[in-house]
Amino acid sequence: MYPKHFEELIAAFEKLPGVGGKTAQRYAFTMLDKESEQIDEMVDALKGIRKIRKCRTCGFLSDEDECVFCKDASRNRTSIMVVAYPQDVAAIEKTGSYKGMYHVLGGLISSSKGIYPEDINIEKLMDRIDPSVKEVIIATSPTMDGEMTALYLDKLLKDKGVLVTRLAHGLPMGASLDYADDLTLIKALDNRRKIEDE
Amino acid sequence: MYPKHFEELIAAFEKLPGVGGKTAQRYAFTMLDKESEQIDEMVDALKGIRKIRKCRTCGFLSDEDECVFCKDASRNRTSIMVVAYPQDVAAIEKTGSYKGMYHVLGGLISSSKGIYPEDINIEKLMDRIDPSVKEVIIATSPTMDGEMTALYLDKLLKDKGVLVTRLAHGLPMGASLDYADDLTLIKALDNRRKIEDE
Repeated sequence: MYPKHFEELIAAFEKLPGVGGKTAQRYAFTMLDKESEQIDEMVDALKGIRKIRKCRTCGFLSDEDECVFCKDASRNRTSIMVVAYPQDVAAIEKTGSYKGMYHVLGGLISSSKGIYPEDINIEKLMDRIDPSVKEVIIATSPTMDGEMTALYLDKLLKDKGVLVTRLAHGLPMGASLDYADDLTLIKALDNRRKIEDE
Repeated sequence: MYPKHFEELIAAFEKLPGVGGKTAQRYAFTMLDKESEQIDEMVDALKGIRKIRKCRTCGFLSDEDECVFCKDASRNRTSIMVVAYPQDVAAIEKTGSYKGMYHVLGGLISSSKGIYPEDINIEKLMDRIDPSVKEVIIATSPTMDGEMTALYLDKLLKDKGVLVTRLAHGLPMGASLDYADDLTLIKALDNRRKIEDE
């Protein structure tokens, strides 16, 4: 019953994750109210993302051959942090406390989803390991697939003679101890540290 | 840190109602994963909605001078339902139980927001009232602004000698009586009907 392009816009918004019919309609009406300039902004951005590819070195997003991190000479090249997705790079960068390099796997090994080591960006990681690399920090999420991927990488990398570390698991800061799940508590206890180490 | 167009797409999504940074990023990554064809769909739809205007008769959305309802000769022209927004037309149409005409005000009279009768599509409604129109159904929401608008229209329309009705207020179907708010219960009691009328 709405004009054709409007129905099409609702349908396009409905394909976004977690967006149902009502929300898609609300988004479409917002775009309708917007000045043409704002429509142009979204159109230009959508057209522009077609040119985005993966950095040939680390797999992060880039509109050139190499991403901003791989091109940045000021970053510490002795350390590579391995993450599953580009979003994880954004999360780490926001903390401002890591200045090394990244490697984006583009997924996790998963027996349930049938994702094997050759399906993710592991080969290029191995190519990057040379004597100049002192540490590989595995920063996959502490989920089943994340753990499996971490163990797999740890094995491969140790053979290369590089120091392999993982992000610590334990109680999240600011959380109540009695709200933590058992696995987190067990990890927090296993990984307890002397107070002077903190 | 993301490529320019990708950051721009996140920014564009963040302007949608109720969308924060995380959600906007999630939407942008979904678009990145989509085949170019789906990006084209959204681009075409966005470009297309620039051509959408208001129906010159009723104010509903249209890409021509008149909307689908005003052009449809099979609809009952003796009845006009007045709603606040185009979305309300969609909600009524979905029920399939109204076959008359519509009039979209494009807003509600609101003392708190400073919206006056001349700011909404009332003049054209008055122009439509001629002896062929037998009933005007006021279907504004039962909110303060909706009620105020309904009362205002009722006064104007009664002078024109047309039958003015309102959507009934009462208990929503399927709801528990003890969960209804007081105002709804009072309305439901005031508007009680003989059982044979149902």
